[in-house]
Amino acid sequence: MLFHVEMTVKLPPDMPADQAAEIKSREKAYAQELQRQGKWRHLWRVAGSYSNISIFDVEDNAELQDLVSNLPLFPWMAISVKPLCRHPSTIREDDT
Amino acid sequence: MLFHVEMTVKLPPDMPADQAAEIKSREKAYAQELQRQGKWRHLWRVAGSYSNISIFDVEDNAELQDLVSNLPLFPWMAISVKPLCRHPSTIREDDT
Amino acid sequence: MLFHVEMTVKLPPDMPADQAAEIKSREKAYAQELQRQGKWRHLWRVAGSYSNISIFDVEDNAELQDLVSNLPLFPWMAISVKPLCRHPSTIREDDT
Amino acid sequence: MLFHVEMTVKLPPDMPADQAAEIKSREKAYAQELQRQGKWRHLWRVAGSYSNISIFDVEDNAELQDLVSNLPLFPWMAISVKPLCRHPSTIREDDT
Amino acid sequence: MLFHVEMTVKLPPDMPADQAAEIKSREKAYAQELQRQGKWRHLWRVAGSYSNISIFDVEDNAELQDLVSNLPLFPWMAISVKPLCRHPSTIREDDT
Amino acid sequence: MLFHVEMTVKLPPDMPADQAAEIKSREKAYAQELQRQGKWRHLWRVAGSYSNISIFDVEDNAELQDLVSNLPLFPWMAISVKPLCRHPSTIREDDT
Amino acid sequence: MLFHVEMTVKLPPDMPADQAAEIKSREKAYAQELQRQGKWRHLWRVAGSYSNISIFDVEDNAELQDLVSNLPLFPWMAISVKPLCRHPSTIREDDT
Amino acid sequence: MLFHVEMTVKLPPDMPADQAAEIKSREKAYAQELQRQGKWRHLWRVAGSYSNISIFDVEDNAELQDLVSNLPLFPWMAISVKPLCRHPSTIREDDT
Amino acid sequence: MLFHVEMTVKLPPDMPADQAAEIKSREKAYAQELQRQGKWRHLWRVAGSYSNISIFDVEDNAELQDLVSNLPLFPWMAISVKPLCRHPSTIREDDT
Amino acid sequence: MLFHVEMTVKLPPDMPADQAAEIKSREKAYAQELQRQGKWRHLWRVAGSYSNISIFDVEDNAELQDLVSNLPLFPWMAISVKPLCRHPSTIREDDT
Repeated sequence: MLFHVEMTVKLPPDMPADQAAEIKSREKAYAQELQRQGKWRHLWRVAGSYSNISIFDVEDNAELQDLVSNLPLFPWMAISVKPLCRHPSTIREDDT
Repeated sequence: MLFHVEMTVKLPPDMPADQAAEIKSREKAYAQELQRQGKWRHLWRVAGSYSNISIFDVEDNAELQDLVSNLPLFPWMAISVKPLCRHPSTIREDDT
Repeated sequence: MLFHVEMTVKLPPDMPADQAAEIKSREKAYAQELQRQGKWRHLWRVAGSYSNISIFDVEDNAELQDLVSNLPLFPWMAISVKPLCRHPSTIREDDT
Repeated sequence: MLFHVEMTVKLPPDMPADQAAEIKSREKAYAQELQRQGKWRHLWRVAGSYSNISIFDVEDNAELQDLVSNLPLFPWMAISVKPLCRHPSTIREDDT
Repeated sequence: MLFHVEMTVKLPPDMPADQAAEIKSREKAYAQELQRQGKWRHLWRVAGSYSNISIFDVEDNAELQDLVSNLPLFPWMAISVKPLCRHPSTIREDDT
Repeated sequence: MLFHVEMTVKLPPDMPADQAAEIKSREKAYAQELQRQGKWRHLWRVAGSYSNISIFDVEDNAELQDLVSNLPLFPWMAISVKPLCRHPSTIREDDT
Repeated sequence: MLFHVEMTVKLPPDMPADQAAEIKSREKAYAQELQRQGKWRHLWRVAGSYSNISIFDVEDNAELQDLVSNLPLFPWMAISVKPLCRHPSTIREDDT
Repeated sequence: MLFHVEMTVKLPPDMPADQAAEIKSREKAYAQELQRQGKWRHLWRVAGSYSNISIFDVEDNAELQDLVSNLPLFPWMAISVKPLCRHPSTIREDDT
Repeated sequence: MLFHVEMTVKLPPDMPADQAAEIKSREKAYAQELQRQGKWRHLWRVAGSYSNISIFDVEDNAELQDLVSNLPLFPWMAISVKPLCRHPSTIREDDT
Repeated sequence: MLFHVEMTVKLPPDMPADQAAEIKSREKAYAQELQRQGKWRHLWRVAGSYSNISIFDVEDNAELQDLVSNLPLFPWMAISVKPLCRHPSTIREDDT
């Protein structure tokens, strides 16, 4: 089941550089692990911003909550979620 | 080059049924043709709405304008556009 | 799987009375049938408005889209959807 | 008498971990006590967020104010309230 | 129990004058009857607008919904509701 | 002359408790003095919030500014003001 | 007593030209008469819009409501009102 | 050439009193000097707020930017600007 | 003197095609004449919309109002205006 | 390919003066270098604000992201991006 998630990162500019680097490093590892598992289907940067557009593929709402709330950057992000489903005009077999 | 496009359809409820059906039929044919050409990469319905989330893959801004403004439902849609690019944490080769 | 749905009805005041009555009658029958099936778990009026707060219990996003987009009042409603899941502090067994 | 309450928690990310844990622990105990008393009827997490949707069942507006303003997380929450009443299409006997 | 209600009237300027006059006449009679019953405690015009600020005194949310939704101008009004209660700094005995 | 004033208090949660108590104590004394003078006609808590709805009765705009800007909590409040006047449907003699 | 009033005119583009001309002619005569009386102190066009910024000088809120609600264009305008008073840094004697 | 400028001051409540006093003193001197030069034509307080409405009379956009950005309170203000011009219904000779 | 103007066209979809074509034709001629005169310096389409971003070069606010309010599409456009001036970091001689 | 970028700087007023000066100096050098390369085509100050309107000319979305995210002031700016393309009414050859 697919969800559209938009995340905007708002790290305070005066956060110590090594703290920021450590959080971002964990975020990257986490994001790549979820991509390898097939749960984080798409991940794009919105050009000219510190935001991303993501498509998650999860079992249910509870798994979405679990994955998103464990993002290392979660406390510094504004997040909006939209549930997705198959569009009647799509030609793809698998809705990905 | 990818663009994130969100479209919300606002057809007046008192539009004659055959007129609405004719416009929607042309919209579907147009959307499927662009998908076959690879220009309309993803098309999802936002559940519980008359909106879709789409990913377009175009040569440049001008082609995006050309494709979107020729949508048969264009005069009845609210549309927002976001340019996308590769995210530093993606593991996909082709940014799709 | 639960979804929180808020619906606000915006019928044009000059709609003929019998047309409005017919649509509302079908809406009521539809809402009651979904409640009997257990899919429309809760339905409350927001006091002082023509809005309701509803909790749907569906298989997945696709079923939510199917149920909501078939509401007889769908073309005249503003609708917002929020996916729900179990709260860590709840004491209920079944999240209802 | 029912009220729909949406709460969004905004704890500063740099709050000391034990202080945050202590506040959340009191919040949980308080929420569970009110649920046992039947005053906090429903409590759901909004998936992908640090928000909840709650239904309170109180004597009057004054009791609502008393219960909400004593939430341990109250100083760190954005809260919106909507009064609810029986919907004419509901099939439940007790409006819960 | 008190509620703060703000109502903004949006009659279409091309409504026939006698139809508008008839609706407003019924609205006035209804408002004055509720004031005489003590249910519509206060009624002020917001200067420079076609809005009013009202304080209702009702048994519960259901009565508020009943009174407001039967306003003759209800289909042409934007309405917002806030539940009120006694303020800890008030010196009045009866919260009116 | 009446004004509708809505005030929302936003004290930082980490303000020392005695400082907050001292400011609130002065606020309460100030509010009660203005009520006794008849200048602060009504004062209600909005249930479920740290906001109030107030009706001021002043000589002119300048007195409103004087009274409001001297509130001890003024630096921590978001305030909105609406001028009021007699409503053509009111049945009260004194517009209070 | 001064009030800041911003008015934005929204005449439907398909209003018959002579009807629009007749309303605007009455609006102009009304505005000029109030200026001659000293009640409409300032009247500026916001460049690039169909809006104006006005300063009214009235006895009280009730007179403001009387003057504004009798504007011939009142049914087609969005209007916002702000009460003004003397600024502590002004050097003018008469606050005009 | 006239511009409408609305300024809202947002000084942090915990700024040391003498620092705030020093900034405000410079702001007042600056505002009065510009008024004497005829460049700051009108200056009103919005009653019940820490905002002002100002009318500037400048040579061009560049002078407006120069005057506004040198306000001692500039770093703590939210500012909105609207270009003004003569209104076709004004009866004043000099648009002031 | 430069102004940034953003225009969004909102023609009703049911406007007769020849009426729409006639208005757009006049709009195009008008826009091209102003460009030839050097008053409409830049004109870009916002991709994926029926909006444009324009830079006007005018004598003063009054000329801006004159040019914009005479746009054939003016009654069907939402327009926002921002005054521009030289940026301290620009390397261009003429601010164009 | 052109993009319209609006940037609003929000430096904290209590940032040490030399730190602010150093960041702004780097920003200026960076902006001027990109202008010399032809990538930052236009740069205007919005009068009465700490905002600019810029036109970038880049190869694709990825280059836009690269240029914008490397702005020395990036962590302190609110930025909005709009893709631009040739307008059918322009008379310029090169869309600049």
